[in-house]
Amino acid sequence: MTELPPYWLRDNCPCAECRDPRNGQKLFQIGDLPDDLAIAASAELDGNLEVLWSDGHRSRYPLAWLHEEAGDDGRTEQGKRLWTAADFARGIPEADWASYLGDPAEQAAVLAAVRHSGFALLRGVPTADRQVLRVAESFGYVRVTNYGELFDVRIEPDPNNLAFTAEAIAPHTDNPYRDPVPTLQLLHCLENSATGGDSGLVDGFRAAALLRDESPEDFAVLTRTPVPFVFRDRRTELRADRPLIDVDALGRIREVRFNNRSIGTLRGDGLESFYAAYRRFAAITLRPELLLTFRLGPGDCLVFDNTRLLHARTAFQQDGHRHLQGCYADLDALSSTLAVLHRRTAALDGIAELFAGEGAGEYLGEPVTMAEHMLQAAAAAEAAGAPDHLVAAALLHDIGHFHGALHGRDLMRGRDNRHSDTGADWLARWFGPEVTEPVRLHVAAKRYLCAVEPGYRERLSEASEYTLRVQGGPMDDRESAAFAELPGAADAVAVRRWDEQAKAPGAATPDFERYRPLLAALMR
Amino acid sequence: MTELPPYWLRDNCPCAECRDPRNGQKLFQIGDLPDDLAIAASAELDGNLEVLWSDGHRSRYPLAWLHEEAGDDGRTEQGKRLWTAADFARGIPEADWASYLGDPAEQAAVLAAVRHSGFALLRGVPTADRQVLRVAESFGYVRVTNYGELFDVRIEPDPNNLAFTAEAIAPHTDNPYRDPVPTLQLLHCLENSATGGDSGLVDGFRAAALLRDESPEDFAVLTRTPVPFVFRDRRTELRADRPLIDVDALGRIREVRFNNRSIGTLRGDGLESFYAAYRRFAAITLRPELLLTFRLGPGDCLVFDNTRLLHARTAFQQDGHRHLQGCYADLDALSSTLAVLHRRTAALDGIAELFAGEGAGEYLGEPVTMAEHMLQAAAAAEAAGAPDHLVAAALLHDIGHFHGALHGRDLMRGRDNRHSDTGADWLARWFGPEVTEPVRLHVAAKRYLCAVEPGYRERLSEASEYTLRVQGGPMDDRESAAFAELPGAADAVAVRRWDEQAKAPGAATPDFERYRPLLAALMR
Repeated sequence: MTELPPYWLRDNCPCAECRDPRNGQKLFQIGDLPDDLAIAASAELDGNLEVLWSDGHRSRYPLAWLHEEAGDDGRTEQGKRLWTAADFARGIPEADWASYLGDPAEQAAVLAAVRHSGFALLRGVPTADRQVLRVAESFGYVRVTNYGELFDVRIEPDPNNLAFTAEAIAPHTDNPYRDPVPTLQLLHCLENSATGGDSGLVDGFRAAALLRDESPEDFAVLTRTPVPFVFRDRRTELRADRPLIDVDALGRIREVRFNNRSIGTLRGDGLESFYAAYRRFAAITLRPELLLTFRLGPGDCLVFDNTRLLHARTAFQQDGHRHLQGCYADLDALSSTLAVLHRRTAALDGIAELFAGEGAGEYLGEPVTMAEHMLQAAAAAEAAGAPDHLVAAALLHDIGHFHGALHGRDLMRGRDNRHSDTGADWLARWFGPEVTEPVRLHVAAKRYLCAVEPGYRERLSEASEYTLRVQGGPMDDRESAAFAELPGAADAVAVRRWDEQAKAPGAATPDFERYRPLLAALMR
Repeated sequence: MTELPPYWLRDNCPCAECRDPRNGQKLFQIGDLPDDLAIAASAELDGNLEVLWSDGHRSRYPLAWLHEEAGDDGRTEQGKRLWTAADFARGIPEADWASYLGDPAEQAAVLAAVRHSGFALLRGVPTADRQVLRVAESFGYVRVTNYGELFDVRIEPDPNNLAFTAEAIAPHTDNPYRDPVPTLQLLHCLENSATGGDSGLVDGFRAAALLRDESPEDFAVLTRTPVPFVFRDRRTELRADRPLIDVDALGRIREVRFNNRSIGTLRGDGLESFYAAYRRFAAITLRPELLLTFRLGPGDCLVFDNTRLLHARTAFQQDGHRHLQGCYADLDALSSTLAVLHRRTAALDGIAELFAGEGAGEYLGEPVTMAEHMLQAAAAAEAAGAPDHLVAAALLHDIGHFHGALHGRDLMRGRDNRHSDTGADWLARWFGPEVTEPVRLHVAAKRYLCAVEPGYRERLSEASEYTLRVQGGPMDDRESAAFAELPGAADAVAVRRWDEQAKAPGAATPDFERYRPLLAALMR
C-alpha cells in the first residue's frame, strides 16, 4: 500500500480535521503539507488502511475506498448510449408529467435519460404560458439569454432568427455563439395544428464518433479548429470561438457545436482542410438513419442536451397554429438533482432493509415483530385519514431502536436507549420536522397521555408499561403543561395512539413497499 | 485571389440570398453547395472582388474584408493584460455607479476592464438588499446556482461553505464543481466594520503563464489532467471533471479552475506527477507579488472573471459586521453589451463626423452652416427646457439631408429629397420613436403651421419658403386635421419652432460634443 503517492493519499484524508463532514470540503491548502511528506508507518486493520505520517498526522482510509474506480461527471461520450433512430423503434424515453412530479423513481428515470440518451419527453405538461419554466425548475435553473427567460417559437413578423419563421430548420445546436453555451434546452408545445412542423433529433456524439471512425484526420481537424460563431442584432453582438467537436484532455467527445447559420468568418491557415472536414461532418449529420423524428403535440415538453443533440424541424404550412415555448438550462443542476434522487433511493433501500432484516426480529416482548408493529401503525394512521407526514411518522416511529449507541434490547434491560431521539436525528438526514418531531416526541406522548388521560395507562401492553418506567414514568403536572405547549404535541399524541393499536398478532399488515412513494415524496 | 479556398469564400458570401441582412445568419446549409464548387471567373472592381461561381451564383466581397485580420472572442490570454499587483500601484480599474449608469463611455471602460484585466470595481452602488442583481442586469443575466439567485457572504450558524464563516480564504475560483462554471462573479459590500476581512485578487492567467515559463512539463500535466471537483450538501451533489488549466485548441490559456477545498479524489495513473505540478502551481498562486489587496467598503461592488481571477479574503474578527451579497453571471453577455456600446460609440463618432464634415458646408441658402443650424436648434430646445429626446430630435432633425438617394442640394433644385423620412429611418437604427418621429414629421409640421397659424408662413426664411413649395405647400384642412391627430404632432411642432429660430448668423452655437452624453443615453 505504501506505493500510493503520499500527497494524493494525504489530500484525501477523510478525518474531520482535514475535511468538513457537512460538505466534504477540504480544510487545508495543498501547500500546507510539508515538502518532505512521507508515510512513516502504515498497517491494515479492520478493513482500513491506518497511516502515520511523517508530520505526526494520522489517517484512516477504508480499503474499499482505496480500490474504488474512477467515476466521472457524465459530460463525455463515456458511458453514454450513442444512438441512431432505430434504437428507439420501440419508443423514446418519456414520462407523464404527473408521474414525474409524484414519483421520484420516474423523475430519476427521465433525468437519467437526458444524461445517457441526451433527451426525454414529458407528456401531459399543462399547456399554460410560462409552464416550460416550471419544468426547468423541477430539476435546475433557467439560463436567461438575449432571447429572454423563455422564448416563443412561432411565426413572428420581423424574425431575428429562422426559428421564428415557418421554414424548415436543419439539425443544429442552439446558441453556439454563447460561451458558456446553454447545455440544456427545453421545448414545450402549446399548439401544433399546422401541417408539417415535425421535430427531429440527431445524436451529435454519434455523428462525431462516425466521423472519427470514417475519417480520423477530419475529426482531428474539427477538434483543433476554433470556429467563430456569431450572432448580431440590434441589442446583441455575441461571438464564441469554439471547435465544432470538443474533446476532453483524454480525447473523449465532450461537446458538439453545429450551426451552419451562425458560423462566422474563419481566418488563418487550414481553411481548405477545415471546410473539407466540416462538409463531411455536415453530411453525416444529415444521414437519414441518424434522424429520429416525432411530432410534438400540445402538452409535450422535450428536454435535451444542447451540447450533444442536434435538433431540427420540418417546414410547416400556415393552415394551423404552431406555438412552442422554449427555455435554456444547464446539465450540472440536472445531474445534481439526479444524484440527490439516487441518494434518496439508496436511503429508502436502507430503510427497506431495516424492515426486512432487523425489523423482522422480536419487538421487545410484544407479540408482533418490530416491522409488523411499525407497518400496523402506518396502516392505522392511513385508516384514520392522517396526512402523509403522519403516516410516515407512524411508519418510522421506532426506527431509533436500530440506531444509536444502545439498541432496543438495552431498553428492555432497563437502560433508556432514547430511541425517539436517535430515530428522529437519523431521519432528519432526509425528512423535515413534520416527520421527525412526532417521532422524537412519541415517547414523551406516552408519558403525557398516562398523566392526563384517565384509563390510558391501564390499556398499555405489559412491555410498554415496563418501558414507561424506564423512560421516566407519567409526566408530572408541570411536564404535562409544557408538553401540551410544544408545536408538535398533537401530532405526537396521534402517532402514539396508532403506536398502541399496532401490536395485534395476525392483523392485516401492509408491505413496506406500499409506503415507498409516500416516503420518497416527503424526502428533501 | 483565386487561390482562396472556394468553400470558405462561398460560405462567406455576403449577398442577401446567402445571409439574412438583419442578423447575418446564413440562409443555406454548407451541404447545399455542390461538391465540385469552383470559381469560374473573378475580377477586382471598385474595391471589390467579384466572383462568378461554377453553379452560376455571383458574389461580391469588399477587398478590405478579404484582408481583415482574425478577431477572437476574448476568452483566452491573447490580447489580455496579465498582471501582478504592482501593475495597479496607481489604482485599480474603478468607476462611480452613477457615471457608469449615465455615461456609456464609462460603462464601456468598466466592461472592457473586466475583459482585459479580469475585474473592475464600482463605487457608490446603493447599499440595498438585492442591489447586486441590478448590477449584473446592467450588462447581462444572473446565473442562478444552488446558492440561490444571490448569496449572502456573512457568518452563518451552520455554514455549508467556508465563505460563510470568519475564516481566511486562500485564493481560489468559485463553483469549480459546476460545468458550465459561472464565468463572472459579483461581490457587493453592504457592511464591513469588522477588523480584517480584506479582499485579494490574483491573476490566474498570470500564475498559469508563470508555471508554463518555469516548468513547462508541470503546465502540460495540469492542462491534460481532468480533475474531479465536487460539492455535496443536503440538496446538492455536483461534480465537474475539468483541468486546473484549460487551454484552447491553439494552446492558449483559456480557463483556470483552482479550489483546493473542492478537489475530489483523482484516480488512475499520473497521480504523482499531477500532485507535484498542482503543488508547484499552488505555490505560484501564493506569491506575494501576485496578490492585489484592497478593502471593500459599503457600496463597493467588485465584478470579476471567475474563469481567470482567483479571489481571497483575510480572516476577520467578530468586532464588527461584514456583509457582502454576491451573485454569478456570464462573460458572453458582458462582451455583447460592450460590443453594442462600441457600436453606439462608432455611430456617435459617425454623426460627429457629419457635423464636422458635410455639416460645416452651406445650409441650403441660409446664412449659417447646416451644423450651426442643427446645434442652434438643439440649444433652443434646451433653453426652452425641452426633454432630452426633443433636444436630440432638434439636434438631428436635418440629418436626412446627408442620407438617402437625394442630397439636400437636390431639394434646392426643386426635387423633394424627403429628408425628414430618410433621416428618421437612418436614426431608427439607434434611436426610438420619441426621437425619430419628431424628425420624421418636422417638414409636415411646417406645412401644418403655415396652414393653421396666422402669420407663421410670413416669418419663414426665403429658402424655407422655397422648399415649402417643393414639399407640397401648406396643408389643406383635411391634412391639417389628420396631422393634429398624430401621436407625435405636438413634439414635431415644437421641433419645428426651434428649427425656424436656428438660422441666426453669429449666434452662440454649442459644440457637438456637448450633446454626446445626451445622445448616448437615448440610444438603444
